[in-house]
Parts: sequence; structure tokens; C-alpha cells
Amino acid sequence: MTESHQLQTDASGDDDAYLLDRSTVAAILAAVDRDDRDQLVTLMEPLHAADIADLLEQINVADRTRLIALFGPEFDGEILTELEDGVRGNIIDTLHPQVLADAVRDLESDDVVDLVEDLDEPRQGVILDALEDADRVAVERALSYPENAAGRLMQREVVMAPQHWTVGQATDMLRNSDKLPEQFYHIVLVDPRLHPVANVTLGKLMGARRDVPLQDIAEEVFQVIPADQDEGDVAYAFNQYHLISAPVVDGDGRLVGVITIDDAMVVLDQEHEEDILRLAGVSESSVSDSVLETSKHRLPWLCVNLVSAITASLVIVTFERTIANLVSLAILMPIIASMGGNAGTQSLTVTVRALATKNLTNANVLRVIRREVSVGLINGALFASIMGTIGILWFGLPWLGAVVGAALIINMLTAAFVGTAIPVVLDKIGVDPALASGTFVTTTTDIVGFFSFLGLATLVFM
Amino acid sequence: MTESHQLQTDASGDDDAYLLDRSTVAAILAAVDRDDRDQLVTLMEPLHAADIADLLEQINVADRTRLIALFGPEFDGEILTELEDGVRGNIIDTLHPQVLADAVRDLESDDVVDLVEDLDEPRQGVILDALEDADRVAVERALSYPENAAGRLMQREVVMAPQHWTVGQATDMLRNSDKLPEQFYHIVLVDPRLHPVANVTLGKLMGARRDVPLQDIAEEVFQVIPADQDEGDVAYAFNQYHLISAPVVDGDGRLVGVITIDDAMVVLDQEHEEDILRLAGVSESSVSDSVLETSKHRLPWLCVNLVSAITASLVIVTFERTIANLVSLAILMPIIASMGGNAGTQSLTVTVRALATKNLTNANVLRVIRREVSVGLINGALFASIMGTIGILWFGLPWLGAVVGAALIINMLTAAFVGTAIPVVLDKIGVDPALASGTFVTTTTDIVGFFSFLGLATLVFM
Repeated sequence: MTESHQLQTDASGDDDAYLLDRSTVAAILAAVDRDDRDQLVTLMEPLHAADIADLLEQINVADRTRLIALFGPEFDGEILTELEDGVRGNIIDTLHPQVLADAVRDLESDDVVDLVEDLDEPRQGVILDALEDADRVAVERALSYPENAAGRLMQREVVMAPQHWTVGQATDMLRNSDKLPEQFYHIVLVDPRLHPVANVTLGKLMGARRDVPLQDIAEEVFQVIPADQDEGDVAYAFNQYHLISAPVVDGDGRLVGVITIDDAMVVLDQEHEEDILRLAGVSESSVSDSVLETSKHRLPWLCVNLVSAITASLVIVTFERTIANLVSLAILMPIIASMGGNAGTQSLTVTVRALATKNLTNANVLRVIRREVSVGLINGALFASIMGTIGILWFGLPWLGAVVGAALIINMLTAAFVGTAIPVVLDKIGVDPALASGTFVTTTTDIVGFFSFLGLATLVFM
Repeated sequence: MTESHQLQTDASGDDDAYLLDRSTVAAILAAVDRDDRDQLVTLMEPLHAADIADLLEQINVADRTRLIALFGPEFDGEILTELEDGVRGNIIDTLHPQVLADAVRDLESDDVVDLVEDLDEPRQGVILDALEDADRVAVERALSYPENAAGRLMQREVVMAPQHWTVGQATDMLRNSDKLPEQFYHIVLVDPRLHPVANVTLGKLMGARRDVPLQDIAEEVFQVIPADQDEGDVAYAFNQYHLISAPVVDGDGRLVGVITIDDAMVVLDQEHEEDILRLAGVSESSVSDSVLETSKHRLPWLCVNLVSAITASLVIVTFERTIANLVSLAILMPIIASMGGNAGTQSLTVTVRALATKNLTNANVLRVIRREVSVGLINGALFASIMGTIGILWFGLPWLGAVVGAALIINMLTAAFVGTAIPVVLDKIGVDPALASGTFVTTTTDIVGFFSFLGLATLVFM
């Protein structure tokens, strides 16, 4: 019954803790090669579903298909919930319909929601048809909430008690109930209209005398989640208030479900993943995507970047004659643009993070912008003096050093300002600042960098 | 006793859910201005410690100091644990020693560890001296574990039971114990040598008959955490295996504490923060840092970027004569470098994320590199044809279009390769790939971009 997964993964505190070890992967692939079903099952059985999912994502398509065919009826529904969308769809197509139906029927309803919400219609149908009626209704009700809403994240099975009950009454209720949820950590106290009013932890319940009113041992921190709230905000609330589970309410404030911290943690992880990829101009992707899928995912921001780069080049065109007279300008101009881009990306990333963690608000936005601009000025002045000196020593032209310095200050100051202001403005108008800011910022620093440097040089030199 | 924090934060499901609302912040600052202590306490009392911490981070230093002086003895230790390092040190210096001592004495020992581990020695001493002897010993023992180790994250209070006990025995033990931990979700079953062998959730315990052996209702997934394991790996394990709490063991495998998911979630959040900032070349920072602190934090990578940019410029110097003869090259060359940098950053970010989530392993590293290079080739060819055509139409020189195209393919192919290979190699040799990869990649794409474009142009044109 109890199996320690520590036995299968190397959790010894070194760098590779929890990495599925090489020899296990090799042994599994060897068993697949030999069509040795017994050996495969023996090797896979002790693995956690999440590790099996990782394994399936990491091996190539041919190996994956053969492994699943050989593994057959042992295939567990939980593995499906742990897989990435692309591989999941692929495996659902591969599985024998009976195996799929059995796998899905074992899952809790919130796991099924997780499983089907990103599938296309036909595959969704296959899964829903496999469910028993009651489960299908529960899943369909969850899917009626908007995508990424708390209603999709919650489990519908809630352990609740009237607010005036005592510890003894609640204990007897739990002892006598037929089917408790697989995982629960609190009893939700509700008023007669089913509005949640407090949470009691099971630990407190077990430690208290039978005649103590539940209200007296309720948690101090209590947060109710509206069913239509965005899952990102749900994850934020769990992280900010250290919640373990929180009741979910409908528009009338009535209890409809409960969200637990493990689901909130998965969302937090996904939101970070999105932010980090969006900042780099990559849309949703995974190591198991095909070459063509990946190429397509990368295209949009490469296109935007091309337009941006051409725009910056048009600035250079304006100063063609100056460059023809002094090629040194062509040598120095990428440095001005690059330093601005780098400084802008720094300000941008700090600002995007501060917005995501709600640390940048109306109360401090002006102060943060002022600080970033001051930083831009200080670091601009510092690098202006360094690069100005290098310019003079390199090309022997004092005026060129001065122009390099002035352009650097202008560009790093601009970088700090746009790196902070653009994400703030995008956030205000409801656009994800992580998604669009990067290109705006580097386009601006390229244009301002080229224009200020070549413009000043033209003024002085021509 | 029970207070709903929903009343104070606007959790209505819109964009600003959980944002401390403007009017509350304004009212608090107004109360501070009027020296109205009663009003301040009334306004602050319903707020969660985490929100008060955010408020203190967002207002300016003068307001903060006056607020804390006025708030005085009401200052809660939990607020300190929620603060960022910089502001925390600042506030510890501001607090009256007696207020500080009272605030700290109310905390659980793992929160005190969290509080003191990043403080400098004298401040650490002030806090430790305020503790009672038993607590101080517990904190000092935790601090004896390496920084970022599981031993610092765990709470020492564990609820355990011999593995052969029944539900009835465990229930009686809980009912009769004087002091249970503030938060606990499992009973850890141990063998006679105190080695943890299984977890029983409180929910299962409450739902089972008294004569059922605890072993029979133990959790299927059970993960033991070594006390010296890195906290990042701990967070990974909680996220991967959906753990709620896990026992921590010393070098001999004996139970020494327990880590709960809320602490793991905080670590996951911090690790992400680090990754995202490091990718942008920013070391640890916060919106409440001063201008000079911020300037200093940004300097190192700006310096690295300057060296990198100058190196790339040295490539341009080599082709000074070619540019002097055809200034159009100076106009086009930033486009080649920029597209390479962008494609490289995409590959880099995907690779760094895949390494962080342990989705990139020995099993698939070669396939991932091959895929990225194929993507680089496909997108390189695509943009080569677009930009080649633009080059021909723009400058009327077919050979220039061909050179632009060839250079773009070379640079985007290089970008894909180095964007994937560099973080993989850094990870292998134990350097955080998020920290150092960015500059390596863009330096390479700048150099290869300039060299291939100007080099080919020189071959063809001169």
C-alpha cells in the first residue's frame, strides 16, 4: 500500500535529486525493445504518475507509442493529468478506447476537468462519454465556468458544518459519513443560507474537547474565493495569505466548492512559466513539441522584431552621409543601442515582476518610476564616462568621446523610463505587460540610441 | 476571533482582486499625518500581516518610520516575517527594543529562522536575545543547516506515531496532547529507530474506525526529504508529487522535522523570481530598494554587456574599409544581429525553463538540441527570404540580398545552437544557466551576425 518514491528517485540532496535516473530510463526502454511486458510493469509500477508523464514527454514518439501499447491496461488516469497538452492529445489517440475509459473513470472530477479543458472537441467527447453520468454532469458544470476561473480549479466535494455546531457534532458527522473527499484539510462552517463563514482545521478539531463550539477554534485568516475569479489571483491569494484550502462561492455567496493549495501551487508555477516565456517572446511551448510546431510558436515575435529592427535601420539611413564620412560611427553605434537595450530590459523585468506580485501599485508607481529614472541617470553617467574615455583613446577624437557619452546618457535614461512606464501603462489598459513590453522597449532604445548618437555626431562633425 | 480578510481586500474577481485598495492606504496615511493612533489601529487591525508588509514596502521611508512609531506596541511579529530583507532590516532598527522582543516572541521557531537568516550579525543577535531559551536553541539549531537547505525550512514540531498503532490510539494521543503544532496535516508513522515510514492524513484518520491499523490508511505517495537537500529541490518535489507535508530526516534517516506545502510554495515563488531576474541580468532587488542600491545591483551585467558590445564592435573594425565603400552595410548589419539575438533568447529561455523543471535530461538533450537547430534553420530560411527580398528592393543590389539572407541563416542557426547548448553546458558544470547564459548568447549572435554579414559582403563586393 505504502510505497516510498524515494526509492526510485535519487533524493540525496545533490544536484540531481528527483531526476528520474538514467539507468531506470534505459532499463524501461530496453524492456520496450524486448517486448518484455512483465519487466516493463515491474519497472514502471513503483514510479509516480508525474515521473511517468515526464518520461513519456522525454522519449521520442516511436518509443512512446510502443511503450504505451505494451503497458496497455496498466495505464493510469493520473498519468494523463500530469502530461503536457501536446503529448496528452497524442497519447489519448494512441490508447485503446477501453483502457482510456478505465483510466478516466478512476479520476476525481476536478482532475478530469484539468484533463479535458485543453483538449479539442472530439477528444473531449471521448473522455466525457467514458464517465459515469454523475461525474459527467459535475465535469460539464465545471466547464461552464470561464477558462482560467476558480470554478474550474475547485473540487465540488466539500466537508461543511453549520456554524453553531460543536467539535463533538462535527467529529461524529465525519466518523459516520460514507464517503469523505480524498483530500481535505478544513471543515467549512456555513450559515443557514450556505454562506461560508469560517474554516476549522482538522488538527484543531482533533485536539479540542467535544463540547467546544467550532466557532471558537476557527482559523484567524479566512478567505472566500468567488467562482469566477481568475486563477492567477487565486494563486496569489494562497501565496500571500498562506492558505491551505479556501471555500469557493457563487454569485450569491453560496458555497459551491473548495480549492486546495496544491492546485494553487500548480497555477502559480504555470503563471510564472507564462511570464518568463512571454518576456522572451515565446508563446506556450514544451520540449516535446515538434519542429514545425516550435517554428510556428516562435514566428510572431520574430516578425515583430524584424519590423522593429527595420524601423531602427531607417534611423541609420537618415545619417548615411555622416557614416560615409566617418565609419567609426558605424563601429560605435551598436554599443549605444546595446547598452540601452540591456538597461531597458533590466527595468522592464523588475517592473513586470513587481506588477505580477502586486508590489507596484498606485501608492508607489511614481516613486518607482522616479527611482528607475535616477538609476538610469547614474548608470548612464557612469558608462558615459567609461565609454567616452574608451572612444577618445580608441579613435583619438575628443568630440567623438563626448558624443558617445552624451548619447549613452540619453539612451540609458530613456531605457529606464520606457522600461518602467510601458509595462505600467499596458497593465492599466488590461494588456499583459509580460507579453508586449519587451519589443516596445528594445525598439525604443534602438531608435533613440541610433538617433541620439548619429544625430549628435552629425551636429558636431558635419 | 474569525475575521474575513475578504472584507478588506477587493476580491470581486476583477483585475484588482487582492490589491490593498487605494482608499484604505490613503486613510492610513491620513491617520499617520494627524497622529491619530486610535484611527490607525482601527484601520490596520483587520489587515493581514502580509498586506501590512506590502503597505510598508510601498510607502516612502518617512511615512513608514512615522507609521511604525505611531503603531508602536501593536506591531506584530508576523509582519516582520512577510517583509523583504531591505525594509525588514530598516524596520528592525526603527522598532523599540521592547516592541521588537514582544513581536518576535509570538512567532513559531521556523518563522524566526526565516526572519533572522538574512539579517546581519548585530540584528540577528538582537532578535535571538529576545527569544526564550528553548526557542533560541531551536533557532540556532536550524541555522546550523546550510543556507537554502531543507533543515532551515522545516518546523521541528512533528506529530508522530509508532507504525503499529491503530486509529484509536492515534486519536486518543491527539486528544490528550497538551500542545499540538499550530498547523499540521499528517501523522508521521515511524519505526522504532525513528525512521519515518508513512504519512496518514487527518481526514483519513477522522473517517476511519478506531480498530483500523494506521498502516492501512497511509498515503500512497510518500516522500522523505533529507535535511541538507536544497530548498529548490524541496519545492520541486512538492509541486511534482502534490505533497502537502513531508517528513525531514537527518543523515541517519531519523525524523527531525516536517515541511509543509505553504513553505514550499514560497520557495517556488522565490526560485522563479530569481530565474526571471537573472535572465534579465538583474540581481536580487525589490521596489523598496534605494536608488544607489538599485544602481549597484544593475551594474555587474551592464559591465559584462559593455565588454560584450565592444568585442562585437571589434569585429566591425575589421571590415571598416568595406563599410566605407558601401554604407548600406552599416544600415543592414544591426538587423542581422538583432534577429539572431532574438532567436537565441527564445531558445535560451525555453532551455533554461526545461532545465529548471527537470524536463530536459540526458534522455532527450540531443533531441532537443537537434529540434532547436532545425527550428533555427527553418525560421532562418524564412526570414532570409523575407529580408533578402527587402534588401534587394531597398538597395537594388541582388548580391546584397543574397548576402543578407545567407548571414541571417548562419546567425539564426548559431543562435539556436548556442541558445540551447550554453545553458545545458553551464548546468552540467554546476553554474546556474539563468545567471550567465544571456550575455554569452547575445555576444555570440552579435559577433557571428556582424562577422558573417560583413565577411560575406567583403568576399563578394571587394
